[in-house]
Amino acid sequence: MKPQHSEVKHSPATHSPVKRRIAFQGELGAFSQVAAAQLAGGDFVPVPFQSFEEIFLAVRNGKCHAAAVPIENTLHGSVHGNYDLLLKYNLPIRNETYVRIVHNLIAAPHVKFSDVKRVYSHEVALNQCRTFFENHSRIEKQVYYDTAGSVKMVMEKGLRDAAAIASAAAAEIYGANILKKSIEDDRQNFTRFFLLEKPKRREPLPRGKEEKPGDVTYKTSLVFTTRNTPGALFRSLSAFALRDLNLTKIESRPLRGKPWEYLFYLDFIGHTEDTAAKNALRHLAEIADMWRVLGCYPAGKL
Amino acid sequence: MKPQHSEVKHSPATHSPVKRRIAFQGELGAFSQVAAAQLAGGDFVPVPFQSFEEIFLAVRNGKCHAAAVPIENTLHGSVHGNYDLLLKYNLPIRNETYVRIVHNLIAAPHVKFSDVKRVYSHEVALNQCRTFFENHSRIEKQVYYDTAGSVKMVMEKGLRDAAAIASAAAAEIYGANILKKSIEDDRQNFTRFFLLEKPKRREPLPRGKEEKPGDVTYKTSLVFTTRNTPGALFRSLSAFALRDLNLTKIESRPLRGKPWEYLFYLDFIGHTEDTAAKNALRHLAEIADMWRVLGCYPAGKL
Repeated sequence: MKPQHSEVKHSPATHSPVKRRIAFQGELGAFSQVAAAQLAGGDFVPVPFQSFEEIFLAVRNGKCHAAAVPIENTLHGSVHGNYDLLLKYNLPIRNETYVRIVHNLIAAPHVKFSDVKRVYSHEVALNQCRTFFENHSRIEKQVYYDTAGSVKMVMEKGLRDAAAIASAAAAEIYGANILKKSIEDDRQNFTRFFLLEKPKRREPLPRGKEEKPGDVTYKTSLVFTTRNTPGALFRSLSAFALRDLNLTKIESRPLRGKPWEYLFYLDFIGHTEDTAAKNALRHLAEIADMWRVLGCYPAGKL
Repeated sequence: MKPQHSEVKHSPATHSPVKRRIAFQGELGAFSQVAAAQLAGGDFVPVPFQSFEEIFLAVRNGKCHAAAVPIENTLHGSVHGNYDLLLKYNLPIRNETYVRIVHNLIAAPHVKFSDVKRVYSHEVALNQCRTFFENHSRIEKQVYYDTAGSVKMVMEKGLRDAAAIASAAAAEIYGANILKKSIEDDRQNFTRFFLLEKPKRREPLPRGKEEKPGDVTYKTSLVFTTRNTPGALFRSLSAFALRDLNLTKIESRPLRGKPWEYLFYLDFIGHTEDTAAKNALRHLAEIADMWRVLGCYPAGKL
């Protein structure tokens, strides 16, 4: 699958060597592109791919400078598949951000709300706008493979009696018009994204940054497995608790075929070069069967 | 939304008073119905609903005897929305099971594999069969709102050049034919389901069963929040570790609008009436801000 080259209004794909190419999964205008914009903190070239594995490959092969990948959602939980890819491809996490999932009703210019008979979007998005559809029973739901893709399709076909549900970015990219803002049922719908980069040459893989600005809160993400003994998790967590390191995430994931063995995801506030963190990781190494730092990065705000 | 009354081949909807009505989300033949069959352990009437909230309501209102709800998937993580509904509706967990998600290529009888030009299914299912589509590039993917629903549609329209991807149960229910078995990329795709029932009258809500057969391994699921102090989670887990209770799940979920406060999901092996479990829960009550047992049930096998 070749990446589609973007021709995004607000970030045109020029040949300037300074613009970073950031890979993401989905169509142009996807929420992952919104995340890429937040993570890039400036001009960048969004490069869409069909699958998550393709974006990891694009960064490893140097086709893209970085990738924006969703890692968990406040309603749908952790994206285990992307944790697996983090372990497989060894791309260090360099930044994180939270994107609020806002669904907008979007149609071609000059289409009025009263014209709309059908609404296309990804099934998850349609299901997250139940109140809207209950209040407007004349409007029929139509499942489409992608939120931003539904805006693209409505625009390309010039539909006058249909609309799409997608991000405001999708409306802007495809030159469409927002008929109704924020029609989602639940405003507590946030997705956490990581920015991944290729590891620096000779960087002990992936152990985080060497430099640490003083005024930034850092977060460290790691994965570990424990031996199959009672209280192994509790002892693992003692490595952090005894050093007053604050955990911001802990999650177990059963290892299939290995009853009673688990993979743990753990995030804590701190930098891998802090003394407390160094000691905690050394202590964890005594207890865990396998452990790996996935990255050390400035903490995003939820 | 009224429930559709089922007319399933292998579990016909008769008026026998002994058959339990089990609510699930999706079309007849959905993986949730497969879970319901595993959980019911005998004849039952499957009652499909569109949304998860509807199945909780159906059990609370007595329209169904029980509900089968997905709670986590080995690839996609926990279904936080259903944890929220467990807290909202107070329906105790009575059983658990794991369903392996097996995707089959299904068409109308006498349709040959070489006839198939298009394949309909839920987007997630299509994406979990990438290798199949890469090996058969003549076949086009078509997103549909539901896996079992795609079999129903292919059969109702009598399509001769199309197939669907769904469970073997869906093929049986709609009288369709399995062209290829198990075309999913990843065989490690399991979903864990809970069986929920209405609490018994006067049952201290929902604290699990009173009776405990001796030879069954029980699991207890609970939710708790901790005070905003360093090491609060570690102290909470000590309630279990100090009594040698084995945890089978721990997961944090940030509480939005309350920085540094978290909801924790925790499962341990043991029955709420065991002395160690009773002591651990009393100990947890000293540490946690809020805690609630979601259920105590025979452990399923992954």
